[in-house]
Amino acid sequence: VENAPAPLFDVDEYRPAAPRAGEGALSTHDSGLVQVERWFHRHSSSLEEKFGAALRQSIDEVLDGQRTGRFDVEELEKTEKTYLGTKVEIVVRSAFDLDRGASMDYSIADCEVDAKWTSGKNWTIPTEAVGHICLLMSADDHESSFRVGLLKITDDIMNRGANKDGKRTLSAEGRTAIRWLIPDGRLPENLLLTLSEGDRSAIFNAGGPYRATPGGGQKRINELLRRVQGRVVDRTTAITVATQLDGPKRVRDARKYLQPEGILVLGHQGNDPKVARALGLPVPTKGSWLSVRVSRVSPGSGRPAATINGELYAVALPGEPVEPAPS
Amino acid sequence: VENAPAPLFDVDEYRPAAPRAGEGALSTHDSGLVQVERWFHRHSSSLEEKFGAALRQSIDEVLDGQRTGRFDVEELEKTEKTYLGTKVEIVVRSAFDLDRGASMDYSIADCEVDAKWTSGKNWTIPTEAVGHICLLMSADDHESSFRVGLLKITDDIMNRGANKDGKRTLSAEGRTAIRWLIPDGRLPENLLLTLSEGDRSAIFNAGGPYRATPGGGQKRINELLRRVQGRVVDRTTAITVATQLDGPKRVRDARKYLQPEGILVLGHQGNDPKVARALGLPVPTKGSWLSVRVSRVSPGSGRPAATINGELYAVALPGEPVEPAPS
Repeated sequence: VENAPAPLFDVDEYRPAAPRAGEGALSTHDSGLVQVERWFHRHSSSLEEKFGAALRQSIDEVLDGQRTGRFDVEELEKTEKTYLGTKVEIVVRSAFDLDRGASMDYSIADCEVDAKWTSGKNWTIPTEAVGHICLLMSADDHESSFRVGLLKITDDIMNRGANKDGKRTLSAEGRTAIRWLIPDGRLPENLLLTLSEGDRSAIFNAGGPYRATPGGGQKRINELLRRVQGRVVDRTTAITVATQLDGPKRVRDARKYLQPEGILVLGHQGNDPKVARALGLPVPTKGSWLSVRVSRVSPGSGRPAATINGELYAVALPGEPVEPAPS
Repeated sequence: VENAPAPLFDVDEYRPAAPRAGEGALSTHDSGLVQVERWFHRHSSSLEEKFGAALRQSIDEVLDGQRTGRFDVEELEKTEKTYLGTKVEIVVRSAFDLDRGASMDYSIADCEVDAKWTSGKNWTIPTEAVGHICLLMSADDHESSFRVGLLKITDDIMNRGANKDGKRTLSAEGRTAIRWLIPDGRLPENLLLTLSEGDRSAIFNAGGPYRATPGGGQKRINELLRRVQGRVVDRTTAITVATQLDGPKRVRDARKYLQPEGILVLGHQGNDPKVARALGLPVPTKGSWLSVRVSRVSPGSGRPAATINGELYAVALPGEPVEPAPS
């Protein structure tokens, strides 16, 4: 592919918006910017997945749920919110094997490119970035969404008022000029954010008032798996709820606590994926799990069912009596 | 132990310095401070090891050597240096299972305690901490040293000039009043910092000019193991030099590259610890390795030697001809 004579992407494919009156030297026509955009598209056919994973990873590392039990960026301290931008810069550099620029964060397709993250709706641009391209990134973890775009920074696309560090925000016109690499990306879900406040507080208080209460991590994990059924529970969620390194072990140990309540905890090994599929549920991959309450059913029930230890089980319906799960 | 009728430590054991003229209400006599000090000593008999590991972990996480190749805190950006204080606060809270305070970072022995980190020689104290106890921590990674102490914050132990955030530094008198939990701790060594600039640049440039050059990680690891022999190479060093997640695999793969040069790479499994011991070398634990060039010797050599594949090997002396290592 690298030696192919014809370019993989034709510049015309990017259809830059026609210049509108008053926009002057339209930044979206910048040839460097087109090169950078082309580089990203050539680099990966799954840009959305790759950026989504990098932003998810960055947010999760700064939340540090394993030590802090936090799952919401709103809980971050100011220094951590600032640092999140640096972490995103580092994780994206590593994910795309980007070189350092001479004056900006990255060198991409021989262009100086600065990484700019925001947790809000606008980006703050330092004076040094004027004349260079910015890789603009933002995410809304509550909406499981993110955006990534490119913009050549010129004075005329920034608001006039600078903050005390001489940084300026993008003007409305500037934001319109952004060429989106990923205009509406799907951020890998933060499971704990999707739960009701009632479920969350029941889970986090299941082990007693203090996170470090002995046995508390196991009780919190048990409660998580009682309340979140039929959905894949990822490793970050497990270590955040356990608030300890061996969250995965707590999930495996939950099997014996939840078995009397009829709840199966399925992983990625042995027959578990087959059982999940037969029950009509998502299949956990390595480092993720799924819990589900089951009931014995007869062969003609018409419900998706899995044979376990010679008996047929289906996902228990609400109201069906609790019987022990197979082991 | 919790129910023992007599306290494990007697307050008198702590021998607070006799008040000197001019010190006023000496902060070191604060009863809360004595309680906090006592709590730490009761909590762990290996305080130095525990704090040392927590500070090492904090520094290594912010360096993020696996992604960045960095090993020196001097290379951190300003936002990262600020964040390091937050990371230390989080890692120490987790290491000692500390509760959050109502107004300060921690609640220890019913006292509000604020975590304060400095990379320098003095600490910057916010106004809110006045009247409370600070857990003062600092480390010098180049000297493999760290200090941890306690101080009750009062107005009279701080310098007068406040910075723009209203924070003040400790006065010389204030620093003298610190009650050291660990006055001169040994920080787990940062191996890369101990190498000469020549060795470091040979290692980091072995793979070509770009960190992400294919095969570069393997070449850097090979060069590390050529130049650092007879010393334990820890996992952080391996992933920083490889600048990739599978640094440990690169170390294992180095065996076949270095075998023709007479270099053994020993790990913690199989016969490796036995061989290391017989050669008179440190024994690698899980997640660490040790490389050494060996030569065949005769039984009467008097040199510490290990029998491998029926032949006797000792650590090669400088100048001894290179012969392939046993596999």
